[in-house]
Amino acid sequence: MKFSLENFLKSGHEIDFKKNEHLLKQGEISRNVYFVVQGVIRHYVIDFLGNEKTIRISQENDFFYSSNISFWKGDASYINCQALLNARLLYWTKDELDDLSSDQPGFILFENNKLKDFVIEKHKKEISRITKNAKERLIEFNETNINLFNRIPHHIIASYLDMTPETLSRLRAKFKKQKS
Amino acid sequence: MKFSLENFLKSGHEIDFKKNEHLLKQGEISRNVYFVVQGVIRHYVIDFLGNEKTIRISQENDFFYSSNISFWKGDASYINCQALLNARLLYWTKDELDDLSSDQPGFILFENNKLKDFVIEKHKKEISRITKNAKERLIEFNETNINLFNRIPHHIIASYLDMTPETLSRLRAKFKKQKS
Repeated sequence: MKFSLENFLKSGHEIDFKKNEHLLKQGEISRNVYFVVQGVIRHYVIDFLGNEKTIRISQENDFFYSSNISFWKGDASYINCQALLNARLLYWTKDELDDLSSDQPGFILFENNKLKDFVIEKHKKEISRITKNAKERLIEFNETNINLFNRIPHHIIASYLDMTPETLSRLRAKFKKQKS
Repeated sequence: MKFSLENFLKSGHEIDFKKNEHLLKQGEISRNVYFVVQGVIRHYVIDFLGNEKTIRISQENDFFYSSNISFWKGDASYINCQALLNARLLYWTKDELDDLSSDQPGFILFENNKLKDFVIEKHKKEISRITKNAKERLIEFNETNINLFNRIPHHIIASYLDMTPETLSRLRAKFKKQKS
């Protein structure tokens, strides 16, 4: 059978999570790949001081591994994965993806493109953290994700952007003042 | 033709770089994928204070893009890529990889596995930076890369490990004292 994104999405299992519910907790094994139909999911770890640090935020039409290392290697996850709003997701198990890889060569190419998109996203984030200051990182974030400020707690966005909630709030106030 | 790693390596073009020579400088476009036959290559960016920050170190048998975003998107690179020792590399152009992708489905699967390895490496690095303190990051680094201390300047390892050269030197002295 020829691979199509439409058929792939149809083959996903629907699952709902309530706001604040966890899809995966640190120490568990990630067994699914997800697609966001509706909602916002955050991926976070606990830093060496015991604080939550958000490393990714998934919105509608995003594919994500609840923890890619755990999913591929079968190791216990370092990542926690939590719905920030009531969420409707689709999921596929590792066995289902393995079957697709052997039955439909087109799936391997699809996965290849998704992996490259993911590497680009992570790389851009890494480089921004190093080469841009807090203000520049916020400007970059606003270009594509400004809608998130109406959807999720701002301290989570601050954590994702490697700044304190106070810095984020100060920068946003400054931007508003400049616009008015 | 069936894909094999052996034939793929045979198809690479040999190229030599002298110690300290750059394979790619910020602003240039990355046109090659490389394989390290001999030598050590560092990947670095200039941080927002103007300092060099090493984000990856490639040794023998490592495949690497001189800059993956630039290679895939054709954008100017943020990354600088420099030989830290006299190096012998193999390289392939984007056109050559595209031809392989269409002629040999096995290549796409090979590339997928390499991309997954790369995502795992980057992810582990990201999580270590957040969840481990300097001492724990050095212990983790020593498990697989302790040989690098005899090959490249230590301030580059310190940068890669997100610590100052002074912290790295202090921690290493402490480890040596504990052993003796």
